[in-house]
Amino acid sequence: MIRVGIINVTGYAGAELARLLYLHPEAEVTSVSGRSAAGKPLAEVFPHLWPLDLKISSELDEVDFVFSALPHGASAEAVVPLVRKGLPVVDISADFRLSDAAEYQRWYGVTHPAPELLPKAVYGLAELNRPAVREARLVANPGCYPTGALLALAPAVKGGIIEPDIVIDAKSGISGAGRSLGLSYHYAEANESVAAYAMEGHRHLPEIAQELGRLWSKAEASLRVTFQPHLVPMTRGILTTCYAPVADGRALTKAGVHALYEDFYKDDPFVRVTAEPPQTKHTWGNNLCLIYPMVDRRADRLVVVSCIDNLVKGAAGQAIQNMNLMLGFPEAAGLDLPAVYP
Amino acid sequence: MIRVGIINVTGYAGAELARLLYLHPEAEVTSVSGRSAAGKPLAEVFPHLWPLDLKISSELDEVDFVFSALPHGASAEAVVPLVRKGLPVVDISADFRLSDAAEYQRWYGVTHPAPELLPKAVYGLAELNRPAVREARLVANPGCYPTGALLALAPAVKGGIIEPDIVIDAKSGISGAGRSLGLSYHYAEANESVAAYAMEGHRHLPEIAQELGRLWSKAEASLRVTFQPHLVPMTRGILTTCYAPVADGRALTKAGVHALYEDFYKDDPFVRVTAEPPQTKHTWGNNLCLIYPMVDRRADRLVVVSCIDNLVKGAAGQAIQNMNLMLGFPEAAGLDLPAVYP
Amino acid sequence: MIRVGIINVTGYAGAELARLLYLHPEAEVTSVSGRSAAGKPLAEVFPHLWPLDLKISSELDEVDFVFSALPHGASAEAVVPLVRKGLPVVDISADFRLSDAAEYQRWYGVTHPAPELLPKAVYGLAELNRPAVREARLVANPGCYPTGALLALAPAVKGGIIEPDIVIDAKSGISGAGRSLGLSYHYAEANESVAAYAMEGHRHLPEIAQELGRLWSKAEASLRVTFQPHLVPMTRGILTTCYAPVADGRALTKAGVHALYEDFYKDDPFVRVTAEPPQTKHTWGNNLCLIYPMVDRRADRLVVVSCIDNLVKGAAGQAIQNMNLMLGFPEAAGLDLPAVYP
Amino acid sequence: MIRVGIINVTGYAGAELARLLYLHPEAEVTSVSGRSAAGKPLAEVFPHLWPLDLKISSELDEVDFVFSALPHGASAEAVVPLVRKGLPVVDISADFRLSDAAEYQRWYGVTHPAPELLPKAVYGLAELNRPAVREARLVANPGCYPTGALLALAPAVKGGIIEPDIVIDAKSGISGAGRSLGLSYHYAEANESVAAYAMEGHRHLPEIAQELGRLWSKAEASLRVTFQPHLVPMTRGILTTCYAPVADGRALTKAGVHALYEDFYKDDPFVRVTAEPPQTKHTWGNNLCLIYPMVDRRADRLVVVSCIDNLVKGAAGQAIQNMNLMLGFPEAAGLDLPAVYP
Repeated sequence: MIRVGIINVTGYAGAELARLLYLHPEAEVTSVSGRSAAGKPLAEVFPHLWPLDLKISSELDEVDFVFSALPHGASAEAVVPLVRKGLPVVDISADFRLSDAAEYQRWYGVTHPAPELLPKAVYGLAELNRPAVREARLVANPGCYPTGALLALAPAVKGGIIEPDIVIDAKSGISGAGRSLGLSYHYAEANESVAAYAMEGHRHLPEIAQELGRLWSKAEASLRVTFQPHLVPMTRGILTTCYAPVADGRALTKAGVHALYEDFYKDDPFVRVTAEPPQTKHTWGNNLCLIYPMVDRRADRLVVVSCIDNLVKGAAGQAIQNMNLMLGFPEAAGLDLPAVYP
Repeated sequence: MIRVGIINVTGYAGAELARLLYLHPEAEVTSVSGRSAAGKPLAEVFPHLWPLDLKISSELDEVDFVFSALPHGASAEAVVPLVRKGLPVVDISADFRLSDAAEYQRWYGVTHPAPELLPKAVYGLAELNRPAVREARLVANPGCYPTGALLALAPAVKGGIIEPDIVIDAKSGISGAGRSLGLSYHYAEANESVAAYAMEGHRHLPEIAQELGRLWSKAEASLRVTFQPHLVPMTRGILTTCYAPVADGRALTKAGVHALYEDFYKDDPFVRVTAEPPQTKHTWGNNLCLIYPMVDRRADRLVVVSCIDNLVKGAAGQAIQNMNLMLGFPEAAGLDLPAVYP
Repeated sequence: MIRVGIINVTGYAGAELARLLYLHPEAEVTSVSGRSAAGKPLAEVFPHLWPLDLKISSELDEVDFVFSALPHGASAEAVVPLVRKGLPVVDISADFRLSDAAEYQRWYGVTHPAPELLPKAVYGLAELNRPAVREARLVANPGCYPTGALLALAPAVKGGIIEPDIVIDAKSGISGAGRSLGLSYHYAEANESVAAYAMEGHRHLPEIAQELGRLWSKAEASLRVTFQPHLVPMTRGILTTCYAPVADGRALTKAGVHALYEDFYKDDPFVRVTAEPPQTKHTWGNNLCLIYPMVDRRADRLVVVSCIDNLVKGAAGQAIQNMNLMLGFPEAAGLDLPAVYP
Repeated sequence: MIRVGIINVTGYAGAELARLLYLHPEAEVTSVSGRSAAGKPLAEVFPHLWPLDLKISSELDEVDFVFSALPHGASAEAVVPLVRKGLPVVDISADFRLSDAAEYQRWYGVTHPAPELLPKAVYGLAELNRPAVREARLVANPGCYPTGALLALAPAVKGGIIEPDIVIDAKSGISGAGRSLGLSYHYAEANESVAAYAMEGHRHLPEIAQELGRLWSKAEASLRVTFQPHLVPMTRGILTTCYAPVADGRALTKAGVHALYEDFYKDDPFVRVTAEPPQTKHTWGNNLCLIYPMVDRRADRLVVVSCIDNLVKGAAGQAIQNMNLMLGFPEAAGLDLPAVYP
């Protein structure tokens, strides 16, 4: 068994890593760290993890593989010495997602702590980047919103079937905001309410734009992307609805688009192109991304809906998928789980 | 006091009419009908209405004003004799919203029961149509989605600040689906889930397109509108996010757009242009529409968010607003209520 | 119009006072205070209160009546000078609910700031104490749990139909915990979960015991009361289920108990004894307490269910009901509202 | 691999069996039946079960083990021929839970279809009945409420530490009502509301009373049990709060009660006596029952809280636990899962 460490296990992504890895046939969590709760048993902080007999420490013990679930900034600092030692690392923070340190500084407001590692980091969306992930020692786990948006749009952008004018409207459950307290996530404020937020620009936009740009082959026009996230009153799940005009002169049909998408994802264990519009509940607790593309013939527009669990395919599950690739395990090892329904 | 009748009080819109009219200073509900529950006291079917000492009958008694909350088709049939008798009527169904009977048949799958009344019916969105509503004897109360979408878009479309290429992404609470049972509205299925639905085309689309078309003055191009509704796990509320490219050559600023919107709605008691992005909870139980327009400068796109309570401004409250105008009462009579928060 | 001041308007009880008083025909909120938000417009902190054009100040202006919605300890300190000036006050905190300062200290962990006022304070449960409330200048507004429990039990305790061995199992929505942040009220933690809490003893127990003791006439046995509160995932509402053995030798029937309860509350505008078991939704946003008593003949036990909105009958609405009595207004002035359903 | 069949896979218990058995190392679902959906692929009816490539048939194919998830009445009829053939069966319905056919008829309103099998059926609460379950060919899976109540009370009743006067107040998520539609489970009706129901007597009461009676050794007094269920707005979970007077002359301490409970359940893989009051979320999706006993010294009363997932330990998970015992597999095979949190 591979010995796995989780840095900052005390957030939702960290706890979800511990939950999912408990089911992994080849890896075992042997060390977890977390500043605020250091010294406490993991099962005291998270009673649902009672079968894991681990104490939260301030530093990881020796392990073979590390997940960092620290906030941005802190994560890069923690990861640098591990990478130098040659440890394979999946970083769940945003620190290694943007390849341009200046862009990072623009959006995150801090100087990148380790720009020298950026060229080595691989963006860990296996469906677009599998070969590079297999070779990587440092993988930047995608953000939850970018995961849902990129998987919904990649076949269309890559396939050149849309104009470069994209609207991404995302609806996220509230665990996406993390375990830190805030008035917007206070039960009585968030329940029975939907809100748009980050209307001046969300930090996941540059990540989405960067990766869509890599897929976009038409040099004559650059992509115009609007990304608008919303909070909806549920714990888990992101539904992303993407809109773009059908490319000039293309006569898309629903069947044709479905065929394109199915072909694009034919080798991906965690993407399903569905026959009916999906709902987030169908991915509750597992690593699937469900995608439903269709064409609004009246307005000549492609509309694509995707569903993920923000804590699994949008965070911990995808991180384990990346680990599996990095270590040569079957890609779905430990992740072959039906969703929890209803 | 005006004597008011409600046809089909047993749905959510009917019950909400009864609740709100209880607070009205000039009107009193004196007769309510409903097929399934005929003969029962209203307060037995709806315990929250216990102060209304009314029995549900199969036919209305004599009244001075009628609201019909019947389903489409049935509503027009019920309304025809009332209109012939000269009674002022607000019809909450879709029957008199579309001015073209063929379009009605296309979307609703039935021949219009009373096409001769269509020219007399006024589309009851007071903010766009106030003078006509004041003169009308038959008002078609707008759908919940069109209310949120039209109020969000009207100043931009009328003002010519956008290209005719509009995406409307709406998120609705589940009471919008009514009181009739259905698996999609079964608690365990709807809770902890977001879903897109009616992806082949929702019946509110032609209504939105018709009214936006009336506001659109540029003959050279027709509007391309995509409308995509979603169900989110809450009881009440619709948040609508609208997207359209800024018109070629316009250099919109956030402040400029806000000024345009504030001017457009300066005389409207139930529309507020907000300084911060709103949430649906801020309209819970009252007749307000909150609107927040902004400009995504990166993509040169107008993004407008609106919030309403689907059962109030999206149904019963707006119907009372229309009654107030038709009968010469103050527009806000009985509707000057803060939202219920949290 | 009476000028009303609200001390600490920035919590849920304070905001709910402002909402409900907006509907009051004889009173107007003219001054509101709050430390953290002093200087801000009320409608900026609470957008649902936008029709109230008030600025939050650090101290109240001159008013005719004061509600204090401060936390315990701070509230008594703020109230003392007002009472000395002769202003009528309803205190929503716990400071004047317990008549015994030592008992207060035992449960709240602080020395009572104004024990000299305790004899003057009246426990403001109008249904049990109406004449005293009418004469009072300082009314202690009951806690939310005691309101639901006392109204459910008073007729039975007073009527001597039960043994002095009472279990009170209460289920509260999460707004009862207030607007201050806490992990237990963080959306993702509280949603999809029910929890028992305060199992070592909740501060509302001595208040319940004190008032039940006043109703209990049998000197030979004192009451044994267990009170266990639970958090359920909803914003508003408390359902309280009370259990007690039928008094020895009594042969209670459901009809007999209903008659006893109906008689007990026959003059109370805000209590209804219902024919069917109620649900909290039937009181959402209004000042009603719905009560359903029944007898478990198998176990010879009285079971009584009550429903209130914790922020209305459990806090702000009851406070206004008390103000109405203190000032000689009709008891239901401003509070005659149907619940908001669904 | 054992071939497993599920009769009536189309309800929530049936679907949950399929989900959990997908994770089982020794058993595989090879045949599923269901009347309404016969002929459809299982994954079309339940998209979360897409990895199971099964078609729903009207009759089971040949299998080695059967779960029946039919409603009561129908289940016994379906089970009889299987038992006669010698197939081991777990029946999730109520048909074989009550050992007295007359009691069954009294509560379920139908004549028992197979009273001759009642003596052979074993009540499948492994924690109380493990040896008998191991030997059984027909196991009656306990109801969801009895599971939570019996596990909370068994050590106290068996240990003789309480008087025979028990109140059981249970709070259930809405999936407990099943997948069949009903107004009480319609989202807009059930959300933001708590309700007591079945106040005249719930069908799970005789089951609870029967099993508690088997544990109760004091011949001089029979048990008086009141069981009151409530619906709370969440999908899964039951929290049960049990109350009983401490037995005369016993001086119980919290530590003493914890020790008694821990000893009672020391060999049970799915019961944990917790150090802090649990919440239902800590069992979301897994087979645990968390129990927290304490003593209210003021009222000399034992108060015990238990939490389960109604669809797992309260239905499908417990059924698999019984299968494991019947077939000689490790008791926790396929069920060793952390809960899904948050």
